[in-house]
Amino acid sequence: MIVSLEGDRGPEQRPTLDRLGELVSSDLQRVNELIVRRMDSQVSLIPELAGHIVAAGGKRLRPMLTLVAAKLCGYRGDRHIALATCVEFIHTATLLHDDVVDESELRRGLKTANALWGNKASVLVGDFLFARAFQIMVEDGSLPVLSILSNASAVISEGEVQQLITANDTATSEQAYLEVIQAKTAALFAAACRIGAVLGERPEVEEEALDSYGLNLGIAFQLVDDALDYSAAQKTLGKSIGDDFREGKITLPIVLAYRRGSETERQFWRRAMEDLEQEDGDLERAISLMDTHGALADTVARARHYGAVARDALGIFSDSVEKRALLDVIDFAIDRAY
Amino acid sequence: MIVSLEGDRGPEQRPTLDRLGELVSSDLQRVNELIVRRMDSQVSLIPELAGHIVAAGGKRLRPMLTLVAAKLCGYRGDRHIALATCVEFIHTATLLHDDVVDESELRRGLKTANALWGNKASVLVGDFLFARAFQIMVEDGSLPVLSILSNASAVISEGEVQQLITANDTATSEQAYLEVIQAKTAALFAAACRIGAVLGERPEVEEEALDSYGLNLGIAFQLVDDALDYSAAQKTLGKSIGDDFREGKITLPIVLAYRRGSETERQFWRRAMEDLEQEDGDLERAISLMDTHGALADTVARARHYGAVARDALGIFSDSVEKRALLDVIDFAIDRAY
Repeated sequence: MIVSLEGDRGPEQRPTLDRLGELVSSDLQRVNELIVRRMDSQVSLIPELAGHIVAAGGKRLRPMLTLVAAKLCGYRGDRHIALATCVEFIHTATLLHDDVVDESELRRGLKTANALWGNKASVLVGDFLFARAFQIMVEDGSLPVLSILSNASAVISEGEVQQLITANDTATSEQAYLEVIQAKTAALFAAACRIGAVLGERPEVEEEALDSYGLNLGIAFQLVDDALDYSAAQKTLGKSIGDDFREGKITLPIVLAYRRGSETERQFWRRAMEDLEQEDGDLERAISLMDTHGALADTVARARHYGAVARDALGIFSDSVEKRALLDVIDFAIDRAY
Repeated sequence: MIVSLEGDRGPEQRPTLDRLGELVSSDLQRVNELIVRRMDSQVSLIPELAGHIVAAGGKRLRPMLTLVAAKLCGYRGDRHIALATCVEFIHTATLLHDDVVDESELRRGLKTANALWGNKASVLVGDFLFARAFQIMVEDGSLPVLSILSNASAVISEGEVQQLITANDTATSEQAYLEVIQAKTAALFAAACRIGAVLGERPEVEEEALDSYGLNLGIAFQLVDDALDYSAAQKTLGKSIGDDFREGKITLPIVLAYRRGSETERQFWRRAMEDLEQEDGDLERAISLMDTHGALADTVARARHYGAVARDALGIFSDSVEKRALLDVIDFAIDRAY
């Protein structure tokens, strides 16, 4: 049984990233060109492998946030192209190292770089992209930007290590889970947005507002991602259902179902998630238990809370097409669940 | 049979790092304290794992080079402590990722971090140390230093990927091998030294001189390391003989022995290094073939060449105890072979 999170809104009213896409379309084209140019190396495996992961990397949401945040802040120069590229390189480097850590075989329906080229190449090309991001930032020459992205990078790796420690632990608290996703996902969203205010030379209060928008958006985004891993809507995103379950990854749907469950149910969760002794029908049972306890719906409800905080963070900015595009992203992030 | 590279010099005349050690002793103490303080994280696995590798990391040669180069250039402030720490963090991060890539079990007689905590933790803690190094550089606030170390980091990862590609290829040319060690080892030596001139606000020609000293010293250092892996002198360094051989790592001793060998010998090298089909007695046969063809002695001769270039690079500096300490490092790097 696959639970659908379908709400009462028809597909024709679904929020999209169309406004954002139109707004940054030509800038994003330049970012994509710069990505290809700057991932180049005389060591040909580097552009090959990096090209694979960048191509598979999806919708470029993080660099788009940098581009539109810069526009929101009245920035009219060219530096946002290079800095959005840095954001995407850091994201790509973490994806490469993530897939090694998770021993993933597939990402967005494509074989992962580590499945194709091996763990070693993935680790080293991730290192290259990370170093290249810092080279580009140094060329740009802004110490505040370097500070934002080096801080984010340190926080991301701390979050990843924390996740490794708490992996397969069904006793993980909601708080501990939140701290992990805040570090491993939301910190880069926050940094990507904050850079826009730095470029626009806006006052600290606007930097903080964009940081808060990005942070809360990032949390909402990850929460919905984690719910989608158990939801029918997932299929329309080209991902398979149950990847997190098979890896024993403890996400909020599991945390809630475990805490709300009976002792028999907890034994099931411990067998499946801690001992990784999974049998046919276990995924269906997991989804059914989540349904019984409202774990998926409440994960999305939590996401909606963070979305609301993100929305209010933008309150200090007057209305503009850029602001509306950023608000769209919140709706899009959450309504993917349906 | 184990070939000794023993020359005619008695042990009492062997070059040491004593002068360097005395010169930077109190600074190095401060670097060690800063290393411990800045590897800290609320995620306790990070200082645990990082502490293990930093403790096992040896003699702190790279940060010592930064410390003494800064003194050579007349720098009298405190910034060299933080920047030497960055150099050591970048080195440590590459060691962690190296051991994952090499699947090493031992480093300097201690279990590697990946053997103790697993590959995943090693990858992520390496990422943390790398990001932390950039945070410290940003706090220091010098774009030239950020440029030097981000460039070095990108070059290091390119060298590591190149080494991965040419791994187990007995047809590797001496030139290709040199390019790999220049990137993966010598680039960080060069950067560590160049930073000293930046701190001392010395003219470009002195920056370049220290860079060239570091680069050539680093090449000599790695060449001797690669020779030592097949030499009796290795034992006194607490390492085991033949690690590179067992991994099928193509280093200059192999490159030379292969190129100078008969077709029968080349078949042996291909079986042992490419197919990794190794039998009892193979390591002894390898060392014997290296002896026949003078491969180890000539690897050290090549190292002596780069040592001579490093020595001449320092020619523009007038005599000082710091300069003599840097010259000692060349002798030490090469005479470890005996």
